[in-house]
Amino acid sequence: MKKILFIATGGTIASAPTDSGLMPELSAGTLLSGIDLPEVEVHSIQPFSLDSTNLAPEHWVQLAAVIRDGWQEYDGFVIAHGTDTMAYGAAALCCLIQNPSKPVILTGSQLPMNSDGSDAPGNLRDALRCAERGRAGVWVSFCGRVIAGNAARKVHTKDFDAFRGFYGEGRDEFTLEEFCQAGQELPDSGTVFYNRLDCKAAVLKLTPGISAEMVHDYGVHVNALIVEGFGLGGVPDYGGGELAHALEELSACGVRVIMTTQVFAGGCDLTVYEVGQSALNAGVIPAEGMTTEYAVMRAMWALAYSYSAEDFKALFLGGGN
Amino acid sequence: MKKILFIATGGTIASAPTDSGLMPELSAGTLLSGIDLPEVEVHSIQPFSLDSTNLAPEHWVQLAAVIRDGWQEYDGFVIAHGTDTMAYGAAALCCLIQNPSKPVILTGSQLPMNSDGSDAPGNLRDALRCAERGRAGVWVSFCGRVIAGNAARKVHTKDFDAFRGFYGEGRDEFTLEEFCQAGQELPDSGTVFYNRLDCKAAVLKLTPGISAEMVHDYGVHVNALIVEGFGLGGVPDYGGGELAHALEELSACGVRVIMTTQVFAGGCDLTVYEVGQSALNAGVIPAEGMTTEYAVMRAMWALAYSYSAEDFKALFLGGGN
Repeated sequence: MKKILFIATGGTIASAPTDSGLMPELSAGTLLSGIDLPEVEVHSIQPFSLDSTNLAPEHWVQLAAVIRDGWQEYDGFVIAHGTDTMAYGAAALCCLIQNPSKPVILTGSQLPMNSDGSDAPGNLRDALRCAERGRAGVWVSFCGRVIAGNAARKVHTKDFDAFRGFYGEGRDEFTLEEFCQAGQELPDSGTVFYNRLDCKAAVLKLTPGISAEMVHDYGVHVNALIVEGFGLGGVPDYGGGELAHALEELSACGVRVIMTTQVFAGGCDLTVYEVGQSALNAGVIPAEGMTTEYAVMRAMWALAYSYSAEDFKALFLGGGN
Repeated sequence: MKKILFIATGGTIASAPTDSGLMPELSAGTLLSGIDLPEVEVHSIQPFSLDSTNLAPEHWVQLAAVIRDGWQEYDGFVIAHGTDTMAYGAAALCCLIQNPSKPVILTGSQLPMNSDGSDAPGNLRDALRCAERGRAGVWVSFCGRVIAGNAARKVHTKDFDAFRGFYGEGRDEFTLEEFCQAGQELPDSGTVFYNRLDCKAAVLKLTPGISAEMVHDYGVHVNALIVEGFGLGGVPDYGGGELAHALEELSACGVRVIMTTQVFAGGCDLTVYEVGQSALNAGVIPAEGMTTEYAVMRAMWALAYSYSAEDFKALFLGGGN
């Protein structure tokens, strides 16, 4: 019989009403108690219990360490995670557990486990099935969809069907049936665990009329700045190119400047328009098909394992999960 | 015969290849020359010709003035606009032309008018039809969809079907047929034009681990800060609540702090979770069902027409288009 490690971290799925709104209250054991388990042996662990808005990169480093510790003992891993930062968490785990040979499945719910009509029991049951039968990798299982961890985005704040996969143009989402039928294991030797993220990476979402001073004063706080441009990506030419100049100055100060798009799907391409080419001329690194969530986490990982701008760029854009 | 004013502003639809990538080159007359016009009299005007990444709030103020000047003479207005900031432009025009009694239709394309297989001729023809027969209001007409100007979001950087309507839970999108069949005119007396936007409003997109210093140093540059939280909205509690404290300090310095969500649809609701309630306790104004694009433009408009925090909040959240 397969052995699954169930890792509870809080989130809506574990929440209960309090005087100041919903807060995570239910234990890992309580979450599992109402679930018709498939024929697997499930052990559980609860490294923390937090609303996922309150998760920071260090928490995902902690989760990766829990998984590394159980890697030999278990056949698959299920993480019950708040939905608010689940896309960031899945992206982080893609960076921290590369080329995994077993399924690592994140799930959660839009309503708490104990609410009437909750999506929690179904999502948790599905995730356990994915961990038992599904293919290796880091995945988000939610509302019948199984989405590559580096492609998942939360698309609705209220609907049960709250996640989609977007990564450039490729296939990054399966139905539960497709996913479980296609189950395959990779050789164990390839899995590489990392244990550091540099949390000094942040997103700058451009808005019309933004000033060069704002770009500068925000960017100087970080080691990597992910600029969400408009459309395919590009730098507005307000004031004779002062925004591009601000980005060049940040690069010169050692900030890794990355460009992506604030548009939901399709990714960025800086080669098409003049405004994109001027961004390339300013030295920005195009995130191409990456989601913003993945670009942020991949930057945090690449920062932690590089010294030079060249090394950073190679790690950030390079292969891996 | 109805009279339509066609306003060309540049954008992909008017672009042509140059040595440094696509740039707007085609005139309003050239854009119209290939179109089978419906039975309408079309006059054209070209106040500027820009890639819409380069548009700033002042350009939309200029467009609203062009429309105001032609309001008595024309039955409808079509604006050919770049897609990159079309959602911001439509939102801006919703603020600058309130309760309009005639159709104001924005359109554009993903490929230039002169490219093989371009979506430009179809989109322009549809927009003219919307302006001739459609209902009053500011709308985005794109790929067979007609979307309320305050709800439009660009959802794909490459697909022709690039826009969707999202505004809380309501209906904000029609098919072209529905829209044109339902044509109705409102009495002219209700239209109110505004001619100012305060461009000192910007978005702060939260990322896991963001520091209070970053929030502060970015926010002090603006008069309104639209914070894109996770999920339904809320402030992470890193470091014992220092982010909420930074937002309180900004509010105390006169910055209007608004909270919305980085999730694509569903809007924000700060009452559900503890992290949301702590944002409310820090005095942030919830943007509720507004898209980020509309929240930014509505803030720019409300800033220009208010002095106190109370007046701002009433204008920002109040009725109108």
